[in-house]
Amino acid sequence: MPIRLSSLFLRTLREDPADAEVDSHRLLVRAGYIRRAAPGVYTWLPLGLAVKAKIEQVVREEMNAAGAQEVFFPALLPREPFEKTNRWTEYGDNLFRLQDRKKADYLLAPTHEEMFTLLVKDLYSSYKDLPLTLYQIQNKYRDEARPRAGLLRGREFVMKDAYSFDVTDEALAVSYRAQRDAYERIFTRLGVEYVIVKADAGAMGGSASEEFLSPSPIGEDTFVRSSGGFAANVEAVAIASPPAQDTANQPAAVVHDSPNTPTIKTLVDLANSTVKRADGREWVAADTLKNVVLALTDQKGKRSLVVVGIPGDREVDAKRAEVAFAPNDVEPANDEDFAKNPGLVKGYIGPVAFDGIRVAGAQLGKDSATKIPYLVDPRVVAGTAWITGANLAEKHVFDLVAGRDFEADGFADIAELRAGDPAPDGSGPLELARGIEIGHVFQLGRKYAEALDLKVLDENGKLVTVTMGSYGIGVTRLVAVLAEANHDEKGLIWPAAVSPADVYVVATGKDEAVYEAAEKLAAELEAKGKTVILDDRAKVSPGVKFSDAELIGVPQIIIVGKGLEQGEVEFWNRATAERRSVGLESAVSLIE
Amino acid sequence: MPIRLSSLFLRTLREDPADAEVDSHRLLVRAGYIRRAAPGVYTWLPLGLAVKAKIEQVVREEMNAAGAQEVFFPALLPREPFEKTNRWTEYGDNLFRLQDRKKADYLLAPTHEEMFTLLVKDLYSSYKDLPLTLYQIQNKYRDEARPRAGLLRGREFVMKDAYSFDVTDEALAVSYRAQRDAYERIFTRLGVEYVIVKADAGAMGGSASEEFLSPSPIGEDTFVRSSGGFAANVEAVAIASPPAQDTANQPAAVVHDSPNTPTIKTLVDLANSTVKRADGREWVAADTLKNVVLALTDQKGKRSLVVVGIPGDREVDAKRAEVAFAPNDVEPANDEDFAKNPGLVKGYIGPVAFDGIRVAGAQLGKDSATKIPYLVDPRVVAGTAWITGANLAEKHVFDLVAGRDFEADGFADIAELRAGDPAPDGSGPLELARGIEIGHVFQLGRKYAEALDLKVLDENGKLVTVTMGSYGIGVTRLVAVLAEANHDEKGLIWPAAVSPADVYVVATGKDEAVYEAAEKLAAELEAKGKTVILDDRAKVSPGVKFSDAELIGVPQIIIVGKGLEQGEVEFWNRATAERRSVGLESAVSLIE
Repeated sequence: MPIRLSSLFLRTLREDPADAEVDSHRLLVRAGYIRRAAPGVYTWLPLGLAVKAKIEQVVREEMNAAGAQEVFFPALLPREPFEKTNRWTEYGDNLFRLQDRKKADYLLAPTHEEMFTLLVKDLYSSYKDLPLTLYQIQNKYRDEARPRAGLLRGREFVMKDAYSFDVTDEALAVSYRAQRDAYERIFTRLGVEYVIVKADAGAMGGSASEEFLSPSPIGEDTFVRSSGGFAANVEAVAIASPPAQDTANQPAAVVHDSPNTPTIKTLVDLANSTVKRADGREWVAADTLKNVVLALTDQKGKRSLVVVGIPGDREVDAKRAEVAFAPNDVEPANDEDFAKNPGLVKGYIGPVAFDGIRVAGAQLGKDSATKIPYLVDPRVVAGTAWITGANLAEKHVFDLVAGRDFEADGFADIAELRAGDPAPDGSGPLELARGIEIGHVFQLGRKYAEALDLKVLDENGKLVTVTMGSYGIGVTRLVAVLAEANHDEKGLIWPAAVSPADVYVVATGKDEAVYEAAEKLAAELEAKGKTVILDDRAKVSPGVKFSDAELIGVPQIIIVGKGLEQGEVEFWNRATAERRSVGLESAVSLIE
Repeated sequence: MPIRLSSLFLRTLREDPADAEVDSHRLLVRAGYIRRAAPGVYTWLPLGLAVKAKIEQVVREEMNAAGAQEVFFPALLPREPFEKTNRWTEYGDNLFRLQDRKKADYLLAPTHEEMFTLLVKDLYSSYKDLPLTLYQIQNKYRDEARPRAGLLRGREFVMKDAYSFDVTDEALAVSYRAQRDAYERIFTRLGVEYVIVKADAGAMGGSASEEFLSPSPIGEDTFVRSSGGFAANVEAVAIASPPAQDTANQPAAVVHDSPNTPTIKTLVDLANSTVKRADGREWVAADTLKNVVLALTDQKGKRSLVVVGIPGDREVDAKRAEVAFAPNDVEPANDEDFAKNPGLVKGYIGPVAFDGIRVAGAQLGKDSATKIPYLVDPRVVAGTAWITGANLAEKHVFDLVAGRDFEADGFADIAELRAGDPAPDGSGPLELARGIEIGHVFQLGRKYAEALDLKVLDENGKLVTVTMGSYGIGVTRLVAVLAEANHDEKGLIWPAAVSPADVYVVATGKDEAVYEAAEKLAAELEAKGKTVILDDRAKVSPGVKFSDAELIGVPQIIIVGKGLEQGEVEFWNRATAERRSVGLESAVSLIE
């Protein structure tokens, strides 16, 4: 039976919802696919449910084809397993926690690593039982600080999460590849544009990790790619160090007065007006070494400082810093931190202490006067010369050479990436883009298996810890991603694979015969296996019907109206807006 | 592709789980359909998920055929709507409550009346939009005090809940009927035995209400039925009063000493040994009137007493009392209650006060000395004579006649029902049975629409409050009900409509040709649209394979083994245990 608009539970809205920040949210609400129930929590109306079900079905088919087996876990879970992996605490405010009537602690699961691990431990015991990949399509919960953009970042959302179980790293790589390939098939079938980027493991711990991003200007993730095929999340890019340089013929370090240089630009201007470079070229921001003081807080809550020297033409990228210093929390040092460390001369911090103009020893580094660890950007290799702070008020040192005048404790790759930077694999200059994470494949390794003691007997009868992979797809997020990528100012334009119906038949006017013909056409299309939405509303104007058709976004529309007297109906391509008359008799075969 | 036991995520268990109280729980765990994740919270393994999906699909098809439209609400809901209907408080400890990071109150929904009501209010505004029936198939949460019997009473469970919206009571009756008919089709298709019983509305408030019970000795609900077609939950039975009797020729009330009569039996024995009945027959327990003192607590927490006189051969039925006095809580009066009411002479309570042997006035009733309301069983009609307490220590009064010697404030139909009691509609004697509630159809009326202000314009442009129906089916409970009704000591025996596969093919022995033939047979069956589980495990003995087949419970089994050399396989009917040899060539057509 066709879905009849005369009875469908639907009211399209002319006004944008007040809280809608992005087009997909705006249109999904206006076209009657979803309604907000609470911040970040949505109700699915019949059309939305149809799109969601189509996505779930594609995911399910490809998971099954890849040999994964479907199970279904509770959303309400006891605290204990999450205590063992420390996620009960690590998740912080993002976890919905509750107590039952006996005051036992429960949570609403954000992901199910622990439960999958325990289930396999419960049933399996031998290497012969593996490899195994299990998955579920299930409601997940995350108490986002700022739920936003409708379905893109919700607090109750549907995910497909899969987990693989293997004995060896090589076998894990095979399971990982099978899921990765399935993801490519899923996104291709759904008509979602995607880029696979190297991803940092982040809070999940583990090794190989790739994200599937759908490029979009409203994406929360920034990624880089080169024409030669490199692609990575900015957090996952390890920049290549330039080769070390000879220090033999470099000018000696000299301290200069540098009053009124609160910014890198003012410092560079001062340098160009007062100090001539030995090689004659102008000083640029990249010649300066900016020493950024960061405060780290470890998992026990202990706070300590670290200083990172980065080229003055770049800022620290907060996400890259977060990853570089994980599992510590990282933030800029505050006034209190500076007050406690008088060795840091704000505005004039540098790795070396000067007594007037003479070197007085290391000022930064584990073995220095301050004992504050000193890390540098990977570009700060031996032989590179810098303008940097002299640890004296209103003084900078010029031509301070790494490896000659100072040593760092190590590297910290936390500077921002910029368009034009070389790809670390030499595949050309990088381009920066934004994307929405739609999938994540990830070699978890043995972290969860160790924490929860998942071991099997190997071929020699020895107990070995299982190695795992974790594979997620944001199902409800995909609805928004598809809507975001497929719309115009008039409404949605669904790819055929996820459209709530195959064909949208509009009957216009007051002529009974038109409605009868439209009903008959809908029935014939359904008989051919096509799903149909039929606008059979008798008292609604053609204008409203056409706007609704455009808003709802089924890609193929057939209008049955005045032309019927000549035996004709109109074919309307939602995407191209092209309309053309065809004979009623040929309409069904044209759709086929 | 067939489900291959060599790779299926399954371990059948020889031992019963320690916490299993009922057969369905025991077998669903042992056969690898479900695993416990927490008290009353279960994980669905692949076979269990297949059965659950089949039930959901039947429910969905019949809901759609009945014109109901599917939506999907969040499980995580804000407090406010439930505050408006008072359910936030009324649900008590049964509700899972939690707070988000901003300390806003949320709950895990036990049912969605409020949300459906608000959604319709949100989108609809006219009588022309109605009738409307919406449904969802969704995870529900209830913090049961005693989760028990596996899936039968869980804390996270799947329900189909539907709600109808109409303008008039007549239209509601039509919507109600459509759902009720759909329920009959659903349970018939699933092969579930059911009885439709009149149900009390209980805590939900409202009018017409029927439960679908599946008869089962482990059921928590007791119901009665007559051969003439009467069926009701014991809570919903209103017994018929006998006709009033003439008091003209009845003997006068006489007070007798009755020491040492702590029970009805001792009282009857004393009566028979000391007082001769005017009509010559023996005294029996049904001649005595037991006055039960109950304490009621209203919704504001105020406690008051009521006395109910019931024939001495019956006990109070706690569930019937609960319903009769709803929304008050009811419990037996305690020592403190008696201490506060010295007018109640414990063991000798009666409606009339005696001064020695002379009537001294009413002792019970709103206008009596004690002012305690006095209600009587519907059998205590005018002209019936009773032995009852005389409100004096060690004294009872005989031949106290209702309507002559005492008047009650009203009736309270709270006595237990017994097999053989007449059906209230005169359709014959009642039989008592136990059942499991699998569905509930219920005319909610305007309670929720009033609380949440759901009004539409009627034909005259006047705002009218919508009337609603509520219709639930316990989807996961049905898995247990089906398992409970369809098993033997060896395992499950699924009805074809919900079996995890249509055919179960077992390959036995070590002969390669057997496994190849079994694979080929499975492929042929799948090509004919049959789903197949194939036991292709090479190193497992036939005995283990056969026990697993019996435990898992697919109704049709084909054994491919030694007979293959003669071109034969064995057909095994799981239910009848009948096995017979058939030609391999005809196996597929026989299954069809």
